[in-house]
Amino acid sequence: MAGRNKITIEKIAMDAGVSIATVSRLLSGKDSVKKETRQKILDTMKALDYSPETMNGSAKPEGKLILMSFPELSNPVFSPIIDGAQTSAFRHGYHLLINQSRTIYKSITDYESLLTNNSISGMILLSSIAEADKLESFNLRCPIVMCSEFCEGCDISYVSIDDYAAAKNATDYLLAMGRKKIVLMNSSLNNKYARHRESGYIASLQGAGIEANEEWIVHLSDVNFDLAISSATHILNSDNRPDAFFAVSDIYAAAIIKACKRLGLSVPQDVSVVGFDNTDITLMTDPAITTVSQPGFQLGYQACDLLIERINNRNLPNKRILLGTELIVRGSTL
Amino acid sequence: MAGRNKITIEKIAMDAGVSIATVSRLLSGKDSVKKETRQKILDTMKALDYSPETMNGSAKPEGKLILMSFPELSNPVFSPIIDGAQTSAFRHGYHLLINQSRTIYKSITDYESLLTNNSISGMILLSSIAEADKLESFNLRCPIVMCSEFCEGCDISYVSIDDYAAAKNATDYLLAMGRKKIVLMNSSLNNKYARHRESGYIASLQGAGIEANEEWIVHLSDVNFDLAISSATHILNSDNRPDAFFAVSDIYAAAIIKACKRLGLSVPQDVSVVGFDNTDITLMTDPAITTVSQPGFQLGYQACDLLIERINNRNLPNKRILLGTELIVRGSTL
Repeated sequence: MAGRNKITIEKIAMDAGVSIATVSRLLSGKDSVKKETRQKILDTMKALDYSPETMNGSAKPEGKLILMSFPELSNPVFSPIIDGAQTSAFRHGYHLLINQSRTIYKSITDYESLLTNNSISGMILLSSIAEADKLESFNLRCPIVMCSEFCEGCDISYVSIDDYAAAKNATDYLLAMGRKKIVLMNSSLNNKYARHRESGYIASLQGAGIEANEEWIVHLSDVNFDLAISSATHILNSDNRPDAFFAVSDIYAAAIIKACKRLGLSVPQDVSVVGFDNTDITLMTDPAITTVSQPGFQLGYQACDLLIERINNRNLPNKRILLGTELIVRGSTL
Repeated sequence: MAGRNKITIEKIAMDAGVSIATVSRLLSGKDSVKKETRQKILDTMKALDYSPETMNGSAKPEGKLILMSFPELSNPVFSPIIDGAQTSAFRHGYHLLINQSRTIYKSITDYESLLTNNSISGMILLSSIAEADKLESFNLRCPIVMCSEFCEGCDISYVSIDDYAAAKNATDYLLAMGRKKIVLMNSSLNNKYARHRESGYIASLQGAGIEANEEWIVHLSDVNFDLAISSATHILNSDNRPDAFFAVSDIYAAAIIKACKRLGLSVPQDVSVVGFDNTDITLMTDPAITTVSQPGFQLGYQACDLLIERINNRNLPNKRILLGTELIVRGSTL
């Protein structure tokens, strides 16, 4: 590692055969840089064993703050993930601070002023951000680990679950229980989890020789209880009534049960319901909800451990970790 | 305000007739200072029109970060409060960062390293912290507004609800519905809200000539669904079975309904249930839960507005704001 302190933007630009402004633009993350150029610069940095803190000749003082960003804190699935990350952060002497992205932080650049003005050592990102280029250059300046959500095609560490397998398994189960008209109540396809679960659902139906019915794949814009009641009511009122729902959230599953009751339909006799997340909601409804349990605490804990590893050594290769899920069978399908 | 820049710890100490070390101790918040001495110093600061940023001769650059601390993020009651605070913060150009106190941040001094090392302009505190002296000296260095919870006897701004009136009203309603054996399922009395709701409950019973039965006042250590099921089951199994529950959280109310069902008791015929918070949980259970609705978004919004007012002008007097609540009647009592 000798001589690392002498690496400058000029050196990187010269070796990569690009202008200083281009390297600077990539590092600032504010402007996009052409894909090939970006790759050239990244390869050069790697060859030079460059890590951002060598840029100014001395390492930045450690702020001991980790930021964790969630899309919406109203979803109880996030609570054990926060607990896990906080436990890991605390063990390593970091404070964990949480940010809710909502519609305020849409792009990774919306986090700029947070990270520039304040001493945040790294970020755990659960909000869905698709800008691969910007994420990667951001990650060069401030270590990122993605959790649950991740950016496909990004070279960024993540800890997540196998959403495809979990959804395929849940749909296989409903088919095995004799259900054939299975609605997928999904979230927006902006989310990686929604895309992967939809693929798993379709693959399961195909495996049983059933073609997916487009009208039975619903994309709700928000994980919102009222919205899900309206949507479920609409589908249940159609002439060709489904006999099961696979919902990508327990909140949706609770809404489907509510909609069934209002229409005088019995769960699970008339309609089976499978949720996702294994939150306390699954035990509050009547009947209790069959659901996919994901290891929330472990997701948060491992994401934070991974981030701290990267904060301490920026040269570690990125890691991809997928944790297992489990289908928990309860009254809503039995 | 002329001459404010010249105020020093020495000047305050001299005018108050105490040692420099004592003033410094009060400002650091790390050690307790005798009540009378503290008052003497605070009075002197007020007389000198002192505000902490004059101490170093120049104002600290504004970090544009507001910290909001919650006891446990698993409780859905906090979600609209976060939304409200974030909306206010964003309008004023601040980032809102959230911290979960759990068992990690027990005392106000546990926030020291967060605020010392980082550029946090102010703090909204929802966690219950009883150390009046420390809170007040902390507030001199970093503006605090308390929200929902507040510290009685502290000279610190807050936005909350009238918990006494809300609980009295809910219990009056159960009495008016003909219930006489009403259990209070309460949280730990470390919380201001728990103490005030208990007083309201007892006052309501007394107003009806009923003496509160100590066995029917339960204090649960956590707002935890499973814990509440166990507790409710235990009480419902007693020889002298209650005919109603007033629960200080919708999570408790959902647990009571679950316990009733498991024991073959009908809600509301055998047992009426009133919850608190008007979260989505109240619509997920069967029957839906009668509950006290509190204005969550407004609580967060006004607390953050108040904090920013104080960040911009440290010399403003502290304010105390109580917002109204509303009893929403649903199937669990009708």
